[in-house]
Amino acid sequence: MQTIFFKNQPRIVATGTIAGPKECAGIVGKYVDKTLDDDTFGESTYEKAECKMLTFAARQAIKNGGGSEKETDMFISGDLLNQIISASFTARDFDFPFIGVYGACSTLAEAYALAATFIDGGYAKKIVAATGSHFSSAERQYRYPLELGNTRPPQSQWTVTGAGGAFIADTGSPIAITSATFGKVVDFGITDVNNMGAAMAPAACDTILTHLRDTGRKPTDYDLILTGDLGALGSRIVKDLTWEKGVDMQSNHVDCGEIIYKVIEDEFQGGSGAGCSAVVFNSYIYDKLKNRELNRVLLCATGALLSTVSSGQGESIPCICHAVSIENV
Amino acid sequence: MQTIFFKNQPRIVATGTIAGPKECAGIVGKYVDKTLDDDTFGESTYEKAECKMLTFAARQAIKNGGGSEKETDMFISGDLLNQIISASFTARDFDFPFIGVYGACSTLAEAYALAATFIDGGYAKKIVAATGSHFSSAERQYRYPLELGNTRPPQSQWTVTGAGGAFIADTGSPIAITSATFGKVVDFGITDVNNMGAAMAPAACDTILTHLRDTGRKPTDYDLILTGDLGALGSRIVKDLTWEKGVDMQSNHVDCGEIIYKVIEDEFQGGSGAGCSAVVFNSYIYDKLKNRELNRVLLCATGALLSTVSSGQGESIPCICHAVSIENV
Repeated sequence: MQTIFFKNQPRIVATGTIAGPKECAGIVGKYVDKTLDDDTFGESTYEKAECKMLTFAARQAIKNGGGSEKETDMFISGDLLNQIISASFTARDFDFPFIGVYGACSTLAEAYALAATFIDGGYAKKIVAATGSHFSSAERQYRYPLELGNTRPPQSQWTVTGAGGAFIADTGSPIAITSATFGKVVDFGITDVNNMGAAMAPAACDTILTHLRDTGRKPTDYDLILTGDLGALGSRIVKDLTWEKGVDMQSNHVDCGEIIYKVIEDEFQGGSGAGCSAVVFNSYIYDKLKNRELNRVLLCATGALLSTVSSGQGESIPCICHAVSIENV
Repeated sequence: MQTIFFKNQPRIVATGTIAGPKECAGIVGKYVDKTLDDDTFGESTYEKAECKMLTFAARQAIKNGGGSEKETDMFISGDLLNQIISASFTARDFDFPFIGVYGACSTLAEAYALAATFIDGGYAKKIVAATGSHFSSAERQYRYPLELGNTRPPQSQWTVTGAGGAFIADTGSPIAITSATFGKVVDFGITDVNNMGAAMAPAACDTILTHLRDTGRKPTDYDLILTGDLGALGSRIVKDLTWEKGVDMQSNHVDCGEIIYKVIEDEFQGGSGAGCSAVVFNSYIYDKLKNRELNRVLLCATGALLSTVSSGQGESIPCICHAVSIENV
């Protein structure tokens, strides 16, 4: 059994979100706590801006949840930058323990699942879990210097500039994390680093099928099966892959990457990055959970666990998907 | 209270270790499961060699513990490489869930503390947790290409080529993880990336003092307070810092980095890297726990949470130390 059930149902008391101007022109604009006019956020480097966004999201989640930093037990976080510096430097501002995690764009679900485990088991009472990403820091780390003005291939996605997190506690909201399915690493041999959606879709399929099997649930038991950032193409692939296994999630599957941008033009397949599900889930989707427009969501954040070195050495892309079941209880 | 107590006392059933020729010339040589004659381990790149060592250590831990991969519930791991590719690519070989963590050289204790939490809470029964590092992959990622033949400053440490891990379960050994203290990020403003020991010592001090306060223990309640990889200088600093706070650990503190190499010459302050405490604890120290030459060890793995980008942007080095109490019960 790969799925962990949380009998004490840890609560997502509140969320905190921030996003860049391009992101806020889309669906999340109305729901984020802060919209940036300028993606440098007043900092001298994109990396510092990314870190400042993450700090903002974490602090805002605590604040929106009526918590205080003094009473927060832990910060669980990670990001896309080498050595997860955004998370580590954010943690430096906090006077409570830090658990650094890495799951590329699956980080949000990994952090939420760990937070729920700590709280469910009585090891902690209040945890802030958050992640984020920045288009410009990701581009220059993973791809090319922005100044080169490289052409983007049509299967590529656009790293989201934004951060989001949640204040998770033992009580304080009807929105609970009821179970978590930590994913296995799945590698279908895809080596095209511009085609992350196709690489990650099999991992999403594996975790979703495992979750449904372990919980005895059908896709329709969820109002929404929300994948992290497969993008438009990856979203179609995961629907096909699950369909082939006899699981129909055509009608209630949405991908954060596919819906975040207003018009998919430069972004081609949509958004990606750890900030993608962090912003979409914690603003737009969390609002629908609060309003009970949605009552049961399976958040499946997907991550491509490559590096420029592994790709340079000819390796394919290992991928992972962690799922957390989030429900009004 | 920063310390978590494990009432069900998860057990370190067995360990698995591997190290390079330079490391095996020292104290750990007699105790590791495998000594490499050649630090490429038959691979075409140092990164692939690092990954192969980690895979070996994880598999060997399961095997030494009489476990099977089929019955293992989780792999918790991380490493020093960008996007923790050694851990992710190792996880690709396993048909069970992966939790990727990052804590630089504190990774071993972070992974053990998480594994103990999962097992203590009944969320998993058998977990393999491991980490490692490789001198040559770390040098070229963090410092200079080896081919440059750069001079090393006297306060520098030598990244350990090796990997180690443990098979942690709910039963099966008298050696238990009884508590864990997750650390806060501490930054004393040190910017010299060649002086990690000095940067990390305050974090080690903070976690050790917190652990002793939370548990009501004195340093002498431990047979050994084992820090991760402060090196010779860092070890002296942590003894001084704790002494200033009225805590005397002069007589029972040892640092893995200080003891791993036979003669500290090229390595100056000793060993470092996630593999340092992974190899020393899981071979030499674990053997002493098994033989009951040691009965109570506080493993305090320390990590410097910098990246080449953060240093290049003028940032100081945020550090962390996670501690786990390991006892014959």
